[in-house]
Amino acid sequence: MTTAPSQSGPGKTLGLLGGMGPEATVELMRRVVAATPARDDADHIRMLVDNNPQVPSRIAHVIEGTGEDPTPVLVSMAEGLKQAGADFLAMPCNTAHWYLPAVCKAVDLPFLDMIDLSVRYLQNSRPPLQRVALLASPAVRKVGLFDQRLQAAGFTPLHAEGKEAEELLKVIRAVKAKGYGETERRGYQAATDGLRQRGAQAYLIACTELSVIDLPDTDGLPIADTLDLLVAEILKTAGVDSLNV
Amino acid sequence: MTTAPSQSGPGKTLGLLGGMGPEATVELMRRVVAATPARDDADHIRMLVDNNPQVPSRIAHVIEGTGEDPTPVLVSMAEGLKQAGADFLAMPCNTAHWYLPAVCKAVDLPFLDMIDLSVRYLQNSRPPLQRVALLASPAVRKVGLFDQRLQAAGFTPLHAEGKEAEELLKVIRAVKAKGYGETERRGYQAATDGLRQRGAQAYLIACTELSVIDLPDTDGLPIADTLDLLVAEILKTAGVDSLNV
Repeated sequence: MTTAPSQSGPGKTLGLLGGMGPEATVELMRRVVAATPARDDADHIRMLVDNNPQVPSRIAHVIEGTGEDPTPVLVSMAEGLKQAGADFLAMPCNTAHWYLPAVCKAVDLPFLDMIDLSVRYLQNSRPPLQRVALLASPAVRKVGLFDQRLQAAGFTPLHAEGKEAEELLKVIRAVKAKGYGETERRGYQAATDGLRQRGAQAYLIACTELSVIDLPDTDGLPIADTLDLLVAEILKTAGVDSLNV
Repeated sequence: MTTAPSQSGPGKTLGLLGGMGPEATVELMRRVVAATPARDDADHIRMLVDNNPQVPSRIAHVIEGTGEDPTPVLVSMAEGLKQAGADFLAMPCNTAHWYLPAVCKAVDLPFLDMIDLSVRYLQNSRPPLQRVALLASPAVRKVGLFDQRLQAAGFTPLHAEGKEAEELLKVIRAVKAKGYGETERRGYQAATDGLRQRGAQAYLIACTELSVIDLPDTDGLPIADTLDLLVAEILKTAGVDSLNV
């Protein structure tokens, strides 16, 4: 700890809509801290975090049609973070990005969009990619969260089908319930293999529950994690040259 | 950060004065999430976090006498967390507890006190302990943060002396600067060994930088981590029966 004045850190404060799930929020924060070149505390960015695991279930609302609309809670979290001093917002939950337009309409702060970040990242891939497999929740597929934007950029999104999709949902639920084990790992691998056999040229991890477990074996195909893309953009926006991402 | 509805989860919202350092804050959150019995997101507690690495250095203020007084920043963080909806506060930095009375005087919310938690924990040790070695920053020793309360409870606090104290400070600075390696690990072990040779019957990790690295070899003596004691108290206060702590 040095005698640096409190003004010496990076300039912009991140506001984080978290808790969806809490493991992913902690993992995002861990990666931000790890990727920041720092000689002391003051070199790190300020993060205001609302880790709110009581946001109504996105999957229940979108897929099962039974749940409460999470929009009002997300808007109130974003407003609270703005009021607390956040300069820009981010949300480490892909599925919740379905509600991003409504939140952005209600709260006037820049919001880092993981879907846009993913499309931009894939556009810079060399050699160029065509068919990108999404490792995501069924809600992400159902609402077409990535599809239109990927297609507009010239990609063909591939989704888990049938048993593959069931296996991915089992993995996501197991992570949330602290029950991820060997059975779920095998199911994840089977879903990943199935997507490759159907022509995937790359994988995009598009569910933050899948970001907190070990990567599947992709048999040499590239794999990108939306959470890493968000970490890199957070540091760039806050004014930090990242170390590892 | 507001008082969004939270019907299904635990009842009380934690407000966390963080960033001192950011690694320790992330580690505290990780341990809270890991220790919560959960079948889904909503079983976790809500945490409002101000991860502010620009709080003026506590060591610089206390030891070097050159730094800015961190009290006003800590008070404003606590006020912000209260306004955002926190029901109780915690701060994963032992040294910063020197400023706790001033913060508590300014902000009317329960504040979990790591020093008190440590004394209570040690009082429940069986067989009873006498000489407890503090693995802490020199600032903690200089201000006697633990001494009076440990002595009032019948303990004899042992501090790192001379070279031992230098080694501990090197470890703390290395963790903050992402430079913790084999040299620092050996210095940490030497300080720990020195304290045992001078009669320590147990160790108390009383610096959250030391909480985020591997435990030293204590040659069979008990070792407790103030960060773990805080995790357990956070879950109890929030209304959760913890799993692992």
